[in-house]
Amino acid sequence: MVDEAREKERPREAVFDASQHPADLAELLEEMNLDQARASLLSLPLSLGADTFAYLDPETQVGLAKVLTRGELAAIVTEMNGDDRADLFNRLTPKQQNALLPGLAQAEREDIRRLAAHEEGTAGAIMTSDYATLTVNLTVKDALGKLRREAPDKETIYRTYVLDADRRLIGSVRLQTLILASPKQKIAEVMERETRAVSVSDDQEEVAQAIAKYDVIALPVVDEDGRLVGIVTHDDAIDVLQAEATEDFQKAAMMTSMVENIGTASIKLLYRKRVYWLVLLVFGNLLSGAGLALYEETIAAYVVLVFFLPVLIASGGNAGSQSSTLTIRAMATGDVEMKDWGRMLLRELSVALALGLTMAFAVSAIGLFRGGLELAFVVAISMLIIVVAGSLVGMSMPFLLSRLGLDPATASGPLITSLADIMGVLVYFSIATAFLIG
Amino acid sequence: MVDEAREKERPREAVFDASQHPADLAELLEEMNLDQARASLLSLPLSLGADTFAYLDPETQVGLAKVLTRGELAAIVTEMNGDDRADLFNRLTPKQQNALLPGLAQAEREDIRRLAAHEEGTAGAIMTSDYATLTVNLTVKDALGKLRREAPDKETIYRTYVLDADRRLIGSVRLQTLILASPKQKIAEVMERETRAVSVSDDQEEVAQAIAKYDVIALPVVDEDGRLVGIVTHDDAIDVLQAEATEDFQKAAMMTSMVENIGTASIKLLYRKRVYWLVLLVFGNLLSGAGLALYEETIAAYVVLVFFLPVLIASGGNAGSQSSTLTIRAMATGDVEMKDWGRMLLRELSVALALGLTMAFAVSAIGLFRGGLELAFVVAISMLIIVVAGSLVGMSMPFLLSRLGLDPATASGPLITSLADIMGVLVYFSIATAFLIG
Repeated sequence: MVDEAREKERPREAVFDASQHPADLAELLEEMNLDQARASLLSLPLSLGADTFAYLDPETQVGLAKVLTRGELAAIVTEMNGDDRADLFNRLTPKQQNALLPGLAQAEREDIRRLAAHEEGTAGAIMTSDYATLTVNLTVKDALGKLRREAPDKETIYRTYVLDADRRLIGSVRLQTLILASPKQKIAEVMERETRAVSVSDDQEEVAQAIAKYDVIALPVVDEDGRLVGIVTHDDAIDVLQAEATEDFQKAAMMTSMVENIGTASIKLLYRKRVYWLVLLVFGNLLSGAGLALYEETIAAYVVLVFFLPVLIASGGNAGSQSSTLTIRAMATGDVEMKDWGRMLLRELSVALALGLTMAFAVSAIGLFRGGLELAFVVAISMLIIVVAGSLVGMSMPFLLSRLGLDPATASGPLITSLADIMGVLVYFSIATAFLIG
Repeated sequence: MVDEAREKERPREAVFDASQHPADLAELLEEMNLDQARASLLSLPLSLGADTFAYLDPETQVGLAKVLTRGELAAIVTEMNGDDRADLFNRLTPKQQNALLPGLAQAEREDIRRLAAHEEGTAGAIMTSDYATLTVNLTVKDALGKLRREAPDKETIYRTYVLDADRRLIGSVRLQTLILASPKQKIAEVMERETRAVSVSDDQEEVAQAIAKYDVIALPVVDEDGRLVGIVTHDDAIDVLQAEATEDFQKAAMMTSMVENIGTASIKLLYRKRVYWLVLLVFGNLLSGAGLALYEETIAAYVVLVFFLPVLIASGGNAGSQSSTLTIRAMATGDVEMKDWGRMLLRELSVALALGLTMAFAVSAIGLFRGGLELAFVVAISMLIIVVAGSLVGMSMPFLLSRLGLDPATASGPLITSLADIMGVLVYFSIATAFLIG
């Protein structure tokens, strides 16, 4: 048992056959060339093939859609879950979409149109229509009968939604509860009132956070009239949260958008994703150089000042990137909101003053040794100001970007560092010029 | 309905009463002082109170454990789920543990001892013992009867585990399947062979990744003899994945350990978590200063060289932190493993050469303008070498740390930047000295 479980960690050595989990089969397909992948996919029973297709990464899906015949693709798409089908459809070119639609039955065509219409990033875009519903007046016995008939087509029947005559969501009931209840009880007696529905237009990350917070298997999605239009399931919530975490992390390293897998991405793609920010930052950092040029005379007179330049500008950037990271993450988890800015700024000021004093003390000892009392004083006072300014900018930038409607995660790391560099140069050399030259 | 759903986004305005979800009640309690929180918690029905207590953050739990009487705490702890109870127990001081144990029944005491014995960070530490089991020879009818009797005590009966006479795990069956099956069928006929059990000693992050990958509600946990000892559920998997993402993100900003919530953490705590790395990096950056001191004569002769110092050292750090972030994330998601190092290094070399050439070109134009052909050449060749070296170090560091048994996430951001700074100073000024002075 334990050894079998270990197998999942080495999918590359696994054989490709119908005994494998679709998630593992998908990983194997992704490593094949398209012709091999097509043949292997078609060798699977149709329903397993459709599940496997749904687990594939978007690029492989689109690639396979090109090499499969219309009939083969239509058969697979018909077997897929509603949400996976709509996702695939959104990834195809209009030409591919038009080729695919006639091969599908009326019900699937309409399901695709409905699900694919929702804006990306919303609850509507990740919800599925494969849920089961009940009405209040059914008995528990009839309800179980209905679920038995519908179960094979549904993504989950562990929680069933209770609707009124207008399809408005009024409650939900767990399968566990139905099994425990007396067969003659009415659904109205055993259901829970539903108060945690989300709206189709809600942000998908918020919906995923709510599923994580309430430990539920799924959350119902309603339209503006309170009518049930879909459910978001726990597995989609995990996918959203993982994708967002990866995205935040990559933004912190100035990748304008996500690289799905660095191990398989092409060198051209990696170059394109990375070069934009790097070159932009070159011009940002040249401003620091321009700042230095303003103080050419001071530098020429006191070359020893240059030795402290790296530590001063790096410290401002380090303190700033600490506070921006903490703020970005707290905003992402909902611990901190826009209205907390003022309060956070005061707290950050206290922390930054304590940090700045500690670091000024550390660096002034070296300043004393290298260049005497005056230099030690200039270096220490610069360090204090630079650390405090860097921290305050680092904390405020995510709020500012968020207010401007931009993603706060863009603010972290190198953007803060570049800003801190310029501030550091100006603070340090203007203080040095005032005390040593003036 | 939609408006009610909105409520959850403003928990601070919600009332504290038994109609709320325990996750919301826990948030309200966390904002009260301990005496208020104690009174509010005790005002809830016991079972809701225990659920709410389980949702509290660790600090509030430990704080409340101090102000509750032994009897009150024992009553709440008895009602909690096995895994939440064991987590709480591990957070208490030995004195608190000894005060609590006599108040519990024998069954709970043994459950705590068993669950609390597993090492932190393993599947054993996050598993729960509230699962239901069946044997192969039961009929579907008897199995449903058994589940009906046991359901109220179990965390989930949506999937039930099938054991042989020695408690070894041989399969599992979904509640959905039991409902669909004929009452007279044997469990052996309807169960699925279980091949995805994890071991108690498996890393909790790997287990959570497996739950995310296979889209399951729970995974069974077995001991070294293949005997079922617990299950890890999807909600615990989400918690693990979120905590790991936060931790990786914070490590990228040099926080030695996690700050739970920057909005409520004390200023003293924030200072302590941040000062360590900042001061350490001060001494790292002073090395760059010491490197500069080696080239005092070169700098004095060509002050213009200093103007390009910020852009050169920052570019090495930026390129390095891009590649370390990509590598860390790919290692965390399992896309890249130790054995891929060599292959990744070759790919990174190609990408970095292309990036370095682009950036050398960008910066040489400015060099030409500021100081003529010789300076432009020195700056361009330095940029190329610094970007390539920074990228290779950035990509290799996570592998190196991982091989040394350290967390690769520690490598990102400022650590890479500081290394790149020192390299940058040495490369730039040795090239400059060779071409301009030598």
